[in-house]
Amino acid sequence: MTRELDEATLEALAIGAGILGTGGGGNPYYGKLYVRRLLREGRRVRIVAPEDVPDEALVVSVGGMGAPTIGIERIHRGDEPLVALRALERHLGRPATHLVPGEIGGANALRPLAVAALADLPVVDGDGMGRAFPELQMDTFAIYGVPATPAALADIYHNVVLFPALRDAVTLERYARAVTVQMGGAAGFAFPAMSGAELRRVVIPYTVTLAVELGAAILDARRRHADPVAAALAVTGGSVLFRGKIVDVERRLAAGFARGVVRLEGIGEDRGSELRIDFQNENLIARRDREVVAVVPDLICLVDQETAEPVTTEVVRYGLRVAVLGIPAPAMLRTPEALAVVGPAAFGYPDVEYRPLPGIYGGDRIAAQRAASSERNRS
Amino acid sequence: MTRELDEATLEALAIGAGILGTGGGGNPYYGKLYVRRLLREGRRVRIVAPEDVPDEALVVSVGGMGAPTIGIERIHRGDEPLVALRALERHLGRPATHLVPGEIGGANALRPLAVAALADLPVVDGDGMGRAFPELQMDTFAIYGVPATPAALADIYHNVVLFPALRDAVTLERYARAVTVQMGGAAGFAFPAMSGAELRRVVIPYTVTLAVELGAAILDARRRHADPVAAALAVTGGSVLFRGKIVDVERRLAAGFARGVVRLEGIGEDRGSELRIDFQNENLIARRDREVVAVVPDLICLVDQETAEPVTTEVVRYGLRVAVLGIPAPAMLRTPEALAVVGPAAFGYPDVEYRPLPGIYGGDRIAAQRAASSERNRS
Repeated sequence: MTRELDEATLEALAIGAGILGTGGGGNPYYGKLYVRRLLREGRRVRIVAPEDVPDEALVVSVGGMGAPTIGIERIHRGDEPLVALRALERHLGRPATHLVPGEIGGANALRPLAVAALADLPVVDGDGMGRAFPELQMDTFAIYGVPATPAALADIYHNVVLFPALRDAVTLERYARAVTVQMGGAAGFAFPAMSGAELRRVVIPYTVTLAVELGAAILDARRRHADPVAAALAVTGGSVLFRGKIVDVERRLAAGFARGVVRLEGIGEDRGSELRIDFQNENLIARRDREVVAVVPDLICLVDQETAEPVTTEVVRYGLRVAVLGIPAPAMLRTPEALAVVGPAAFGYPDVEYRPLPGIYGGDRIAAQRAASSERNRS
Repeated sequence: MTRELDEATLEALAIGAGILGTGGGGNPYYGKLYVRRLLREGRRVRIVAPEDVPDEALVVSVGGMGAPTIGIERIHRGDEPLVALRALERHLGRPATHLVPGEIGGANALRPLAVAALADLPVVDGDGMGRAFPELQMDTFAIYGVPATPAALADIYHNVVLFPALRDAVTLERYARAVTVQMGGAAGFAFPAMSGAELRRVVIPYTVTLAVELGAAILDARRRHADPVAAALAVTGGSVLFRGKIVDVERRLAAGFARGVVRLEGIGEDRGSELRIDFQNENLIARRDREVVAVVPDLICLVDQETAEPVTTEVVRYGLRVAVLGIPAPAMLRTPEALAVVGPAAFGYPDVEYRPLPGIYGGDRIAAQRAASSERNRS
């Protein structure tokens, strides 16, 4: 099933991606404007279901690398990931046939769409994180065995750095992060490359659809003067962990990452309680009055309590009144292999236990519905 | 003219390269042992005069990147630059025909010989610095217009990073330095690639011969119980700036460089005076009682006052009695284009004026002698 992206879908996608960014991944706003301009220029973006990607396809993940706090101050050209893609294609000696987002959370949900519009390539409905994560080895492509290299980075001046062969994704993360810092804190990337058959094995499916449905539900609730937060929960499978006012933000830029702590004072039913959220680009751990209530890879998302507009790490500030959503992680992130890479220990919290939030991740729900419906069609 | 390297020549070369390293470039000792082992295994190293390199040759500069203080603690495999060379050749789609040292000072004088032995490629008698410098844009290849990219780096695990197209050598320095730090502070490199015709335009000629003659003169003086320091001066065209005891060394590792200050108290004729030397991997500026007496790109070399053994930045220590040699820089480093890149301002000393030391750089003398002799042969 292929659908073509229109402006309304793009608008919804940007909101959904902002929430799924769990505070990080960069604000999708610039990316949305860029893709909208490309659509208005007559370019098109096709979204293709994973099951419709041919086995022998060459699928490449593209996006941007860098701390979101830099992304907001330093405007991208927009074609950096395309320059990286072209360098990777030259190295591979063959052109990409499909693109796939590395992460559906934040700005990186939009960047593949821009590359797709520029290069007229279809984008797979799925991604490698089902959310956003700060480091590049933290995607299901790497976790489930797709080699991270060859990989390419490009900067705003179209300088290109190629990684033909590194021993693993963690090494790529270190080397590419160091280059990204030198590139002014932001780079476009193209990696990994995989076949269509590999893609289907490792991708978290239907997350583009999830982000669109999430944003559309919120927009619809706003129009109907219904509760946008409730609408978001219905689509994502999440619950409200806390409602409160942001009373403190500690934020520092360290080694290319935005790290810090956000503190909230409860309001309404949560009056008298405090919530503390640790983040590294993305929100990692939520503690209510010192008790852990949600842990990475489950999604901890701050949204405006009235509009459900996402509140990202780089815009979070004193006085905002927010709802903190806890959204169950995709099943593919809850396996032992995945938890070794994206669980609390991997983020420097060896003493925090991962206790899964109840519920089913929205993308997994969509996948189950699609499977059931195609089963029905077949019988 | 092609000569084959033997063990005696290698021994002399290592001493000469140590002195021409002006304190930096890494200690040639490990490199010498490695090349000696390769020679004993039956491999060969051919040294070719620049005029004997065909115009259409593919000449590649190879060596190691990193702070010398790391090189002494972290032993290289030795084949890192070869791995980088192979990656560059694959990228270029053709094999190298010749190697050329990037710098004749320090360990990088030896590394191309090891690659030459492993790959059975001839090494050009010349280099890009006529000494050692801390940053890679500081060679005559970059100064006189050879594009710095494509370039390749490889680490001890044979991880490879390729820079297909960066806008200039300074960008390569920044990006490659950042990767080198992630590689554990040491990497093998292969760049730039150039034709034989280009090489002849930009290379500082006969510096391998200079290093060999320098080391041989010192070894010969030691055997004859003559003064090795005087022998070194005769070959290099230098003079003694100061004789003294090292009384203080400030050294720190910053952003992949060894930076600091060495202080000497005069002995003999220099008693009562003090010499202060600022270094960044290499010695940059010598001040005698606050008066500047030698400035980069002229060579400031510490040698043991009895043996003329080089005293490098990473082994310099309290109590050593040394002669400080001031050696005139190659003519190719004294042009306005070169001084903009390797003069005192480029090292953060905008207020220090470059006043050339008197005399002629040893390599320039050899070049003049060769030119005169080939003129005679022709007439």
